[in-house]
Amino acid sequence: MNLQPLFSPRSIAVIGASTRPGSVGSTLTENLLAYGYTGRVYPVNPKAETLFGLQCFASIHEIKAEVDLAIIIIPAALVLGALREAGEKNVKAVIIISAGFKETGEAGMALEREVIRIAREFDIALLGPNCLGFLRPKIGLNASFAKGMANPGSIAFFSQSGALCTALLDLTHKTLGFSSFVSVGNKAVLSEIDFLEYYASEQDTKVIAFYSEGLRDAKSIIETGRAILLRAEPKPVIALKSGTTEAGTAASSSHTGALAGSEKAYQALFRQARIVRATSLQSLSEILSVFSQNPLPEGKNIGIITNAGGLGVLATDEAVRQGLTIAPLSEETKRRLEALPPSAGHNNPVDVLGDALAPRYELALDALLHDRQVHMILVIVTPQAMTQAKETAEVIAFAKKHSGKPIVVVLAGQDALEESLAILAKNEVATLTYPEAGARALAHLAHVAQWRRVAYYTPFSFKDIDLVGAQKIVQGVRQGGRTNLYETEVWQILTCYGFRFLKSASVSSAKEAQDKASLFDGPIAMKIVSPDITHKSDAGGVALGVNPKDAGKEYEALLQRVSEHAKDARLEGALIVEMAQKGGREIILGLKHEVGLGKLIMVGLGGIFVETFKDVAFRFAPLSTEDAREMIGELQALPLLQGTRGQSGVDTEALVAFIGRISRLATDFPEIEELDINPLLAFQNGQDFRVLDARIRLSDQTGTKKKVTKVLVTAK
Amino acid sequence: MNLQPLFSPRSIAVIGASTRPGSVGSTLTENLLAYGYTGRVYPVNPKAETLFGLQCFASIHEIKAEVDLAIIIIPAALVLGALREAGEKNVKAVIIISAGFKETGEAGMALEREVIRIAREFDIALLGPNCLGFLRPKIGLNASFAKGMANPGSIAFFSQSGALCTALLDLTHKTLGFSSFVSVGNKAVLSEIDFLEYYASEQDTKVIAFYSEGLRDAKSIIETGRAILLRAEPKPVIALKSGTTEAGTAASSSHTGALAGSEKAYQALFRQARIVRATSLQSLSEILSVFSQNPLPEGKNIGIITNAGGLGVLATDEAVRQGLTIAPLSEETKRRLEALPPSAGHNNPVDVLGDALAPRYELALDALLHDRQVHMILVIVTPQAMTQAKETAEVIAFAKKHSGKPIVVVLAGQDALEESLAILAKNEVATLTYPEAGARALAHLAHVAQWRRVAYYTPFSFKDIDLVGAQKIVQGVRQGGRTNLYETEVWQILTCYGFRFLKSASVSSAKEAQDKASLFDGPIAMKIVSPDITHKSDAGGVALGVNPKDAGKEYEALLQRVSEHAKDARLEGALIVEMAQKGGREIILGLKHEVGLGKLIMVGLGGIFVETFKDVAFRFAPLSTEDAREMIGELQALPLLQGTRGQSGVDTEALVAFIGRISRLATDFPEIEELDINPLLAFQNGQDFRVLDARIRLSDQTGTKKKVTKVLVTAK
Repeated sequence: MNLQPLFSPRSIAVIGASTRPGSVGSTLTENLLAYGYTGRVYPVNPKAETLFGLQCFASIHEIKAEVDLAIIIIPAALVLGALREAGEKNVKAVIIISAGFKETGEAGMALEREVIRIAREFDIALLGPNCLGFLRPKIGLNASFAKGMANPGSIAFFSQSGALCTALLDLTHKTLGFSSFVSVGNKAVLSEIDFLEYYASEQDTKVIAFYSEGLRDAKSIIETGRAILLRAEPKPVIALKSGTTEAGTAASSSHTGALAGSEKAYQALFRQARIVRATSLQSLSEILSVFSQNPLPEGKNIGIITNAGGLGVLATDEAVRQGLTIAPLSEETKRRLEALPPSAGHNNPVDVLGDALAPRYELALDALLHDRQVHMILVIVTPQAMTQAKETAEVIAFAKKHSGKPIVVVLAGQDALEESLAILAKNEVATLTYPEAGARALAHLAHVAQWRRVAYYTPFSFKDIDLVGAQKIVQGVRQGGRTNLYETEVWQILTCYGFRFLKSASVSSAKEAQDKASLFDGPIAMKIVSPDITHKSDAGGVALGVNPKDAGKEYEALLQRVSEHAKDARLEGALIVEMAQKGGREIILGLKHEVGLGKLIMVGLGGIFVETFKDVAFRFAPLSTEDAREMIGELQALPLLQGTRGQSGVDTEALVAFIGRISRLATDFPEIEELDINPLLAFQNGQDFRVLDARIRLSDQTGTKKKVTKVLVTAK
Repeated sequence: MNLQPLFSPRSIAVIGASTRPGSVGSTLTENLLAYGYTGRVYPVNPKAETLFGLQCFASIHEIKAEVDLAIIIIPAALVLGALREAGEKNVKAVIIISAGFKETGEAGMALEREVIRIAREFDIALLGPNCLGFLRPKIGLNASFAKGMANPGSIAFFSQSGALCTALLDLTHKTLGFSSFVSVGNKAVLSEIDFLEYYASEQDTKVIAFYSEGLRDAKSIIETGRAILLRAEPKPVIALKSGTTEAGTAASSSHTGALAGSEKAYQALFRQARIVRATSLQSLSEILSVFSQNPLPEGKNIGIITNAGGLGVLATDEAVRQGLTIAPLSEETKRRLEALPPSAGHNNPVDVLGDALAPRYELALDALLHDRQVHMILVIVTPQAMTQAKETAEVIAFAKKHSGKPIVVVLAGQDALEESLAILAKNEVATLTYPEAGARALAHLAHVAQWRRVAYYTPFSFKDIDLVGAQKIVQGVRQGGRTNLYETEVWQILTCYGFRFLKSASVSSAKEAQDKASLFDGPIAMKIVSPDITHKSDAGGVALGVNPKDAGKEYEALLQRVSEHAKDARLEGALIVEMAQKGGREIILGLKHEVGLGKLIMVGLGGIFVETFKDVAFRFAPLSTEDAREMIGELQALPLLQGTRGQSGVDTEALVAFIGRISRLATDFPEIEELDINPLLAFQNGQDFRVLDARIRLSDQTGTKKKVTKVLVTAK
C-alpha cells in the first residue's frame, strides 16, 4: 500500500475543523499550521466560511484542488459518509481521529467493518480510527492533536496507545529525534506490518520502533523483520509489547479490544523476526537513544571507562549478565594506559579515578578506541569535586565523531552534569543515567549485530513427503464431519510426513501370529484383543520381549492364561507390536494455531521436563533449519540431548529434520489446529526414532470447539 | 561498639586541616563549618596558627578540651602516629580519610593491620581508611570532602564506594532525604554489620540501605536483618551488592581488594536476612524513594489509576510478574467509579482517560482508598493536552496525607510535569518516571510486609544426635593429619547425626553368610570381595535380590562362578548389602564453607537435576525449620518431591529435618569445609531414607588444599 499520500501529503483536508477552543478539531488544525508545513490545508466545516484565516469548505467535494490526505474528526456516526466522500474525491489517504469504533463493543465493531469496506473499495491508506494522528518533524507536519513537535531525527515510532505517544515525547524530548511519530489507533486498515514495510525503505529512518498490545500475521512480520536487517544499511527494529501476563491481557482487552496473544508466542515471534524486545517503557527509550546514535559493533567486547570504581563494577556485572565480554586489552593499549596515575585501574574497566580531569578521559578513550579487541565503549562520568563537566563532554564528543565504534555515556548525576548532557546531545552521543542501563542497551546493539552476521535461513527440503496421501486422509475426516482424527488417521498422516511408528499387526490365530511375527526383526510384544478386558496385564494378556519364532506358541499361552483368568471374556485375537528400543529420550513435538498470528511449533523433552520444568521452545512455521536448531539450542535440557553423564545423546540433526517436517505439515495443512507427538522416542540414530503417541485436531468449521480425543499407540 | 561519638560528636579535631585550595584537608574543614554544625571544630596542623578563623593546633595533644571525633587526612605513612595520639587523648571515634592501605597491596595491608591493632587497643570506633567521610543533614554535619549537603530525611545509607555516594547524592537530591550518608571505605574496623546494628535503633532512621562489594559473617547479618524487621516499627533494609558475576568480581578485587563471594551465596544471605536486594543503582534509588515515604501495605493487592491505558497495561504486566495481585474491586467501589465517563476503564486498572482533570483522579483515588481489598495504589499521570499538573498533584498529596496505604505516583513526563513533581516531593509522596518501576518498587514493599507477617524462625531440635561420638571421629582424622575422611568415618559421623545407610555385613563363609543374612529384613545383594577383581558383575561376582534364607547357598554359588571365571583370583569372602528400595528420589544435600561468610547448606534433586538444570537452593547455617522449608519450596523440581504424574512424592517434612541435621552438623563442626551427600534416596516414609554416597572434607590446618577423595557406599 502506498503511504506517500499519508506521510508526505501535498494537501490536507480537515473534516471537522473548528475554532472552538480546546476541541480536537481546533487543536489539530492549529497544529497543522504551527510548525512550518508548506502544503495546502483545507478546513471542512459546513458551519463556517473561514477558519484560522483559511477558506472553509462545506464538504470535501467543494474543494476544487486535489487532496492527498483527509483527516476526519467528526462524531463516529458521521464518519462513514465523510469517508465515502473522500473516496469519491479520489483522496488516497485518510486519518480517522474519531473514537467510537471497535473499542466500544458490538455496534462500534460493525461501524469499523464498514470503514474497512469503504477504505478497500476506494483503495485508501487509512490510519486509525481512534488515534492521535502523526508527526513528521522534518517537514514541520503535526497531523495530530498532541501538543508540541518532536525533534527531527532518525527514529520512526508507531504506537497502539496514543497516550503513550504523548508520554514518550515529553520524556525523551531532550535526548531523541524522530523521523515519524505515529499513533496507529484501532489498526482497521494500516497496521504494524504496513509501517514496518514502509519504514524499511523510507530514507529518513534509521531505527524503527513500536508499541503494540497485539500483532497479527507472524509470517509477514518475521519475513519483514529479517529483510530489514539484511539490507545494505540495516535498520534495527525495537518492540515494546504489553499485555503478555494474564492480568495484563485482561487490561489490554478492556483498553482497545486487542486480543493479546500469549507471552511464549510473542517471545518466539520477536526472536524469529530479529526484533529487539524492550522490556519496559524506560528500556525502550534507552535502546532508542543508543541505537539511533551509534553504528552496530563488530563484536561483543565492551570497554568501560569510569571515574567511580563502584559504578564500573555495576556496569561490568550487568554487561556480563547480558552476554557481553569485558574486552581483554592489547599490550599496546596497556602501555598507553600506563600514563594514568599508579592507583588508577589500568585494566578493563579503566578506572581514571575520582579526581580525573578531561585529559585522563581523553587518554583512556584514545587507547580503547585504537584497540581492535574493543568493539564498543561505555564511558561513566560521576560528578566528583574536580570533574570537568564541559571539557569531559567535549573530549567524548570529539572521540565519537572520529570513531566508528559505538560509544555510550553514563552521566550519573543531574544538575552537576547538565552541561555535559547538553554538549553530548548536540553531538549525537547517547547518554543514559545509570551504568546498568548503558551496559544493557549496548548488549542489545551487539545482539542485533550478531543477528546480522549469522543471518542464514535455509529452508527445509523433503523429497519423501506424500502430500496427496495426507490430503486424502484429511478430506475423509472432513467428509465425516469430524475435527479429531482417529488413531489410524494420525498414523497415516504422520507416516506420509516421514515419521515412523512401532510396527504392529493384528492376528487371530496361532498360525497367523507365527506367520506375521516372522516379518518383525527384533523381539515383539503381544497383547490380547478383547472387548471385555480392560487391564490386560492383570489378566495375563500381555507378553513382552517375545522372540518372533515363538509367536505361535505364545499366542496360545496368552489365550490360555486369559481364559483361565476371565472365563467369560470374548477373545478376538492378539496385537503384535514391535518392542521399542531401550534408552531412548522422550521428545515432545507440537503444533498450535495461535489465533491471528499463525502456526506455532514446539519442541521439548517429554515427561517431567515439559510438565515440571516447562522446558520447551517455540517458533512460528515455516521454519528454516536454523530456526529448528535455535529451538533445540534454547532447551535447558540440551545436554541431555547431546549426551551427558556417560549416557549417549540423540541424533540432534535428525530431530531438527523432524521439527522441520512438522513445520511443513503445518504449512501444507493450515486446517490443523493442534498436533501433539508425545513422545517421539529419539535415539543415537535418526533411523530409530519412533512415535509412540500422537493426536491431531483440525480447525472447527462450525465454530464450536470439541474435546480432543487422545489416541494411543504404544507397546506398554 | 558505641557509634555516638562518631555520628553525634560534640567536638571534632581535623588532623591535616589545610587552607590549600582544592586540597581534601581544606574542603573537609570548610564542609564542617558550612552547614550549621554547632559542635566545636579543632584544626590540627603544625604549620599554621589559625585556619578558617579558628585556632590551629600543632598536635591533638595540644587541644585541652575533650575531642569526640578525630578526622585524619594526612599521608598514609603518618596515620599510625596520629591514630595513636588520638587514642592516647581518649578520642573514641576516628575517620581515616587517607588512602594507601589495603587497596594498594601487601605493604598497605600491613599498615592497615596496624591501624586495626591500635583502634582495638584504644577501643576506637574507626571509619575508613580510604573513605569520603559521612554526612548527617539533621545536625548540619558534613564530615566528608563531598560537595554540598544531602537533604534531611529518614534514609541511612552507607557505601563501600565513595564515588557512588557522590553520584547517588546528585541523582536523588530532588527526591530523597537522608538521616546519614556514610562512605565506609576499607572497613578496617567498622563494617556493614556495625552500621546495621546502629541504625536499627537510631531514631531518625526509618529505612537502611547500603552498597557493598563484599560482606562478612552471614550469621550476624541474618540475625540483625531479621531483628530489625521484627521491631515494633520495622525498618526495611535494602542492599545493592556488586561483583557477583565472575568478571564483576575481578573488577571488584582490583577496586578495593574486597574478596567478593559468589552470587548464589549472596542470594541466600539476603533472602535469609530479609534484606531487599536492589538489582541496579537505579532500582536502589527507586526503592528508597518508595520505602522512605510509605508504610508497609497490608497485603499484595495493587490498585492502578491511569490517564493512559497503555501505561496502565505496562504497570499491570510488571505488577503481576513481580508477584502482586491486581486488586479485585468491591461492588461499592465499582458503584463509585460509575461516576467516571462511560468510556473510562471502570475496573482495575482504572483508566480515567486522557482528558482527565484533577477531580477524576480524586474520585478514583477516593474510591480505591476506601476499598479494603486494595492494599496499595499506583497513580500514573501522563502529560496530555488537558492534564492539570498542579491540581492533580495536590489531589494526590491530600489523599496521601489522609491515608494509611502506600501511594506511588508515576509522572511519565519531564517539563510538562515539573510542577507536579515539586508538589509531590514537598508532600513526601514518592514519584517515579516509569510505570514498570513503580510496580516493581511497590512489589518490594509488599514482600517486606509479607516477610514481617510470617517472621517465624523455629530452631531445629534433635534429641538423638551423638555429638561425642562424632567428635571422636573428627579427632581421629585430625590426629592422623588428614582432611579427607575415610568412607567408614563419613558413615559413622552421619550415623551420629541420624542418617541411615544401607545395612551391610562382611562374611567369609557360607555359614557366616547364612547367619548374618538372617538379620536382614528384605532381599539382599551379595558381592564378592577380592583384591584381584575390578569388574565384579562381569566376573559373576554380584547377586541381586537374594532371599536372606538362600544366603549360604548363594555364597557358594558366587564363589564357584567367580573362580570359574577368574581362576587365580584371591577370594576373601563376600559383602552382604541391604537392597535399596525401588522408586526413591535421589536428593543431593551439601555443605560448603563460604570464605568470610559462613556455612552454606545446599539441597536439590540429584542427577540431571543438579547437573543439567542446576536446580538447587542455598541457605546459611544455622537454619530454622522455615529456612529449610523455603529451600525446598524454591526448587523448580518441587512437584517431583510432592508427587506428580501418578508417581508418589517423598516425605518432605523428613527431608526438612535432614536438611536441619546437616545445618546442626555444620554448626557443631566448623572445621567441616565441605560435605556432599549424593544421593540421599528419599521415599514416602522418612524412615526409609538412605544415604548411598557421601564425602566430608575438613578445613586444611596447614593451609594447602588437598584433593577430595570420593567415598562410595552402594548396593549397585
